[in-house]
Amino acid sequence: MVSGADFPARRPGFARWLSASNDITQQFLAIGGRPDFISMAGGLPAAELYPAAAIAEAAQKALARWGATALEYGPVEGFPALRQFIAERVGRQAGRSIGPENVLLTVGAMQALDLIGKVLIDPGDPIVVQFPTYVGALDAWRMRAPSYRLLDWSPDADSQALRGAQFVYTVPNYSNPTGVLVPTAARQALLERVLAAGTWLIEDDPYLPLQYSGAAGPSILELHGRMAPEGPYDGPVIYLGTLSKSIVPGLRVGWVIAPSAMIQALAIAKQSSDLSSSMLTQAIALELLESGHEEQHVPTIIRHYTERRDALCAAARSELAEWFDWEIPPGGMFVWMRRRDPAIDTDALYQYALREKVAFVPGSVFDPAGKLTSAMRVNFSRNAPSVLQEGVARLAAATRHYLRKNS
Amino acid sequence: MVSGADFPARRPGFARWLSASNDITQQFLAIGGRPDFISMAGGLPAAELYPAAAIAEAAQKALARWGATALEYGPVEGFPALRQFIAERVGRQAGRSIGPENVLLTVGAMQALDLIGKVLIDPGDPIVVQFPTYVGALDAWRMRAPSYRLLDWSPDADSQALRGAQFVYTVPNYSNPTGVLVPTAARQALLERVLAAGTWLIEDDPYLPLQYSGAAGPSILELHGRMAPEGPYDGPVIYLGTLSKSIVPGLRVGWVIAPSAMIQALAIAKQSSDLSSSMLTQAIALELLESGHEEQHVPTIIRHYTERRDALCAAARSELAEWFDWEIPPGGMFVWMRRRDPAIDTDALYQYALREKVAFVPGSVFDPAGKLTSAMRVNFSRNAPSVLQEGVARLAAATRHYLRKNS
Repeated sequence: MVSGADFPARRPGFARWLSASNDITQQFLAIGGRPDFISMAGGLPAAELYPAAAIAEAAQKALARWGATALEYGPVEGFPALRQFIAERVGRQAGRSIGPENVLLTVGAMQALDLIGKVLIDPGDPIVVQFPTYVGALDAWRMRAPSYRLLDWSPDADSQALRGAQFVYTVPNYSNPTGVLVPTAARQALLERVLAAGTWLIEDDPYLPLQYSGAAGPSILELHGRMAPEGPYDGPVIYLGTLSKSIVPGLRVGWVIAPSAMIQALAIAKQSSDLSSSMLTQAIALELLESGHEEQHVPTIIRHYTERRDALCAAARSELAEWFDWEIPPGGMFVWMRRRDPAIDTDALYQYALREKVAFVPGSVFDPAGKLTSAMRVNFSRNAPSVLQEGVARLAAATRHYLRKNS
Repeated sequence: MVSGADFPARRPGFARWLSASNDITQQFLAIGGRPDFISMAGGLPAAELYPAAAIAEAAQKALARWGATALEYGPVEGFPALRQFIAERVGRQAGRSIGPENVLLTVGAMQALDLIGKVLIDPGDPIVVQFPTYVGALDAWRMRAPSYRLLDWSPDADSQALRGAQFVYTVPNYSNPTGVLVPTAARQALLERVLAAGTWLIEDDPYLPLQYSGAAGPSILELHGRMAPEGPYDGPVIYLGTLSKSIVPGLRVGWVIAPSAMIQALAIAKQSSDLSSSMLTQAIALELLESGHEEQHVPTIIRHYTERRDALCAAARSELAEWFDWEIPPGGMFVWMRRRDPAIDTDALYQYALREKVAFVPGSVFDPAGKLTSAMRVNFSRNAPSVLQEGVARLAAATRHYLRKNS
């Protein structure tokens, strides 16, 4: 008989993509739980604003209303009443009819990225991404091994660069990580290039509710609606939304809007990923949406986040302006700080920051090539203004230590 | 300006695996919602037994106890208190210490299969599967494109057939689709071959709670524990469990037990699949488990399912015995009916069954090669005895029509 003890070394290795992966998101989620750390890393909402009482009430209502239906395996595509609600809402926003057959409900928008990778990427397939790129999208697609091209937003960009690509990926409202609001004209021009090139356009819109200075732009889905307002939706835009920023992330409810043939393909991928999402959390989400809770709650979030954004930027002005440049973001959750001092490598600075018990996200994780070391993403939604001030002070201390050792 | 209307045909195609996929699980979930159909297809629990009141109470307790923590993005690995609970429980069952670092909480056991495919399969990698094989596992791994070998349970099988395989996959308790309970000696022999070959063993155990005639076998995890009871768990068994059969599927709570290095790899894959599971449903699951609800509830399920199994088999004895053979399964959810009449092709019969408004699962979907057309899987957990009797009558009518047209 063989003993188990001497076998681990002889076991098969992991799939190849794992050696290129990083666990930085896991690290951030873990650091988030350490009280001695100030994490300005993750894209986390303010937990103290979570509407726990409203959710408890919605849970009771949902179970009373739907009974066993809320406890079943659901249809793969999602809880029918919530699909219908989301279809109507997005249709109103986009100014064209969207049917439930155009909606897939997902485990947050993150699962949508995973499913899109599964149905649209074979190894080596080219995709075009807004740069820098949301780290979660890079994570989701790493195992599908696409080849990356960087999206050119300049007015003289032509559709040639999009030809042959499986899709274009963009976060036009308060981009992650930069906080940039893409102007309407640039959105329209991109849509036209996408149509001319004959590819898909992933419009990832998690930050839509978080508008602080003026309004978000019209979604590219809406711009397409203006061009083709009639008939079943068959445009190139695959639109992603979520309740994670406007209500709570813990329900894990997001959605994809797309032509029905794409929804069907994504549903096949979802079926083989988790069979179906929790019907209970979907039924709770429906109660919160139908009762108007989200609209009531969002102004509170906006008030707090605006204050936090301003506190972060004010502290940075007095403590970090010597070394970094940034714009005040008109919405979203992040300030993108670019080095002024070319001696600063943000990957290296990150290690000094951890020693000071403060975390940000170094720019390299937003680069498909991993080489962007001139900037960092700093979150302001998670922490109270006083904590952000202390976080910036620690970041300034880390920068001073780093420059002392490296110049 | 370009119109959107004329572009769909020019859009990029789907990833290659999709052309080899089927939507049969989706079909079953959809048929399940049609009142005129009797579906004996899906592996669905009896919805009328779902403990909606207990879950409503658990939801209130969970939110009162955990507050905002239950509404967060969770740690990727799962809700810490539930990880701890599952570690202790599985450790007791397996007769060895299992730590929380050996536990990953998943969206049902289905997500575990997806994550295992992601971390262990590169295209062309050999894997060894119990035959016939759970359709969800084949679905989960299709896009990873493994090459399949079929597991040999015979006493003279040797470890050579497992060499070079990334893993072996088995459902030893009341296998899906056959309902077979693998004998303890065969489990032990397989474990020894796995250790000798130096590979992983996926032990998928969703039906453990559903024991009708005698006890389930010791898990292969437990058999390994007898060989190596000391120290951190570092065995070859990757064990999958779920609450979908013993409480409700709609919470979408399952777990993986594995050495911590494997849990960490699976967590990286989970992070890029959905960031984290719903903390709320995990917190509700913890309340139900801590309060002993599962142990109280399972005997009710067993009583009903035993009655249903017996009703199905009795009806089949009087109506189907001319054309099919089967064993009465000692547990689980399925009867595996094998044709006696070689003229019967169960793929073809399935179309006749749909016309009679009855559904089963044709054997071909449980075959990596899609060629098994000599048997069908019939579920007995979902429907009341009288409905099963009517379903069997429809199945008999479908078989008569089929044979009249095809002989």
